[in-house]
Amino acid sequence: MGLRALAQAARRKESPLVVGLDPAPLRFPGELRDLAEAQATLEFCLGILEAVEPYAAAVKPQVAFFERLGPEGMKVYAALVSAARDLGLPVISDAKRGDIGPVAAAYAEAHLRLYGATCVTVNPYMGSDAVLPFLEEARRRDAGGGVFALVATSNPSSGEIQQATDPPLHEVAARLVANLGQRDGDYLDCGAVVGATRPSIGRRVRELLPDALFLTPGYGAQGGGAPEVVPLLDARGAGVLVNSSRAILYAHEKTSTDYRHAASEAARQARDDLRHAGVRC
Amino acid sequence: MGLRALAQAARRKESPLVVGLDPAPLRFPGELRDLAEAQATLEFCLGILEAVEPYAAAVKPQVAFFERLGPEGMKVYAALVSAARDLGLPVISDAKRGDIGPVAAAYAEAHLRLYGATCVTVNPYMGSDAVLPFLEEARRRDAGGGVFALVATSNPSSGEIQQATDPPLHEVAARLVANLGQRDGDYLDCGAVVGATRPSIGRRVRELLPDALFLTPGYGAQGGGAPEVVPLLDARGAGVLVNSSRAILYAHEKTSTDYRHAASEAARQARDDLRHAGVRC
Repeated sequence: MGLRALAQAARRKESPLVVGLDPAPLRFPGELRDLAEAQATLEFCLGILEAVEPYAAAVKPQVAFFERLGPEGMKVYAALVSAARDLGLPVISDAKRGDIGPVAAAYAEAHLRLYGATCVTVNPYMGSDAVLPFLEEARRRDAGGGVFALVATSNPSSGEIQQATDPPLHEVAARLVANLGQRDGDYLDCGAVVGATRPSIGRRVRELLPDALFLTPGYGAQGGGAPEVVPLLDARGAGVLVNSSRAILYAHEKTSTDYRHAASEAARQARDDLRHAGVRC
Repeated sequence: MGLRALAQAARRKESPLVVGLDPAPLRFPGELRDLAEAQATLEFCLGILEAVEPYAAAVKPQVAFFERLGPEGMKVYAALVSAARDLGLPVISDAKRGDIGPVAAAYAEAHLRLYGATCVTVNPYMGSDAVLPFLEEARRRDAGGGVFALVATSNPSSGEIQQATDPPLHEVAARLVANLGQRDGDYLDCGAVVGATRPSIGRRVRELLPDALFLTPGYGAQGGGAPEVVPLLDARGAGVLVNSSRAILYAHEKTSTDYRHAASEAARQARDDLRHAGVRC
């Protein structure tokens, strides 16, 4: 199945939740504040992995927060991907790389082969040249992985580019995903990043991509709720993996309990919230 | 001046040439083939830096080729940026990162602060949220640096996204650059990546961005010649930095001389070719 590692994990856990790993050292609990940033980042993220594993279909490390720590940060990223896999958690590398041909192939090699993520996010600004090398690397590996291309993002300024033309860019990008993805089981092996903050756009992208798995940011700290996810669902009421990052990672800020306990509770609640809204797997 | 480190270096050397550092170990000369990839990459690139320094306004390391070597590769990237700066060569980090808010700020911190590049390329798919954090980091540093946003790229499939709408995306992106860049001396501090392979598109982008510095791929191995650069020039016959990567790095494949000598000659010829076509600095 395209993106089958993710779909299988979601079904097994009956959870459409993806936990984004966006480690911000200033928000770490006090017990980690005396460590060097790279070490604190590793310990914090390892704690989160174990805490959310029962409730998360996958984790999504945000590469920027490791890249900013230099070569040491990339060692932490490598250790984290490895630890997630040991826990049976598929890893979506949130790299959003967007380059072409041999450059894209080098990024695909880095994230899918060397670091060993299951899936990777990519930016389609440069067209299929920027997406296919990632798909080819994922297909070569047969690890049930694939690619999520940015289509309709959830950030405030996305409309300046994605909804500024006729047809809107999110429709053009959705058609690119439909053309490049290969159906294999339930889903294409090229998924789409579709935010939960603009349901009418999400509904339109779903019309264009009835068979694609969506990776959906905008839930939780970014303001979207489970009802905003519903218009993105496919005909089976599934097909959406919903990311939450800060609302889970930093749940301890509101509870004064151990950060792992707080994250675990927040992940469980997010999973239940999505289930109750009718988001299937 | 916006992007003043680049403009000053180009004027000082009377050269609009940027040498792209796209190290492909399979194409390294025989003398480097016995080394581990990371070590060979470092030695190769250091040799290229010294060889092209007299003729290049700047160098542009392609981050993917270091990222694919893991944490060791990022150490090589760090050493290379440092060596270029020691030679007085501004560094354009060809990272094409495209994320938002704190994530974009983390990438900006990595490339402009930690690794110390002068400039960085960015992908505007997510709108101004994806560009401003880089500009803010560049402005904070006052190193004469700035940002180049992808506008009209030179790859074959670029039209699938960039010329698929009305108005075309390259016009939307050009207007974004015009809105976000701050005029400071000769140029905005936000430049534009505009390929040399489609002169009519380049001419249109220049109409929209009369005061922007262009970073122009597509010259050399990608098939564009110096005449294709001319439509991109500003009213003074300047405003374009022209990148060449493989035609310079691997010039030794056609000459059977030392790779440094071959690269030096190829860089000199490219500079002369651009000068003779009337590309000013």
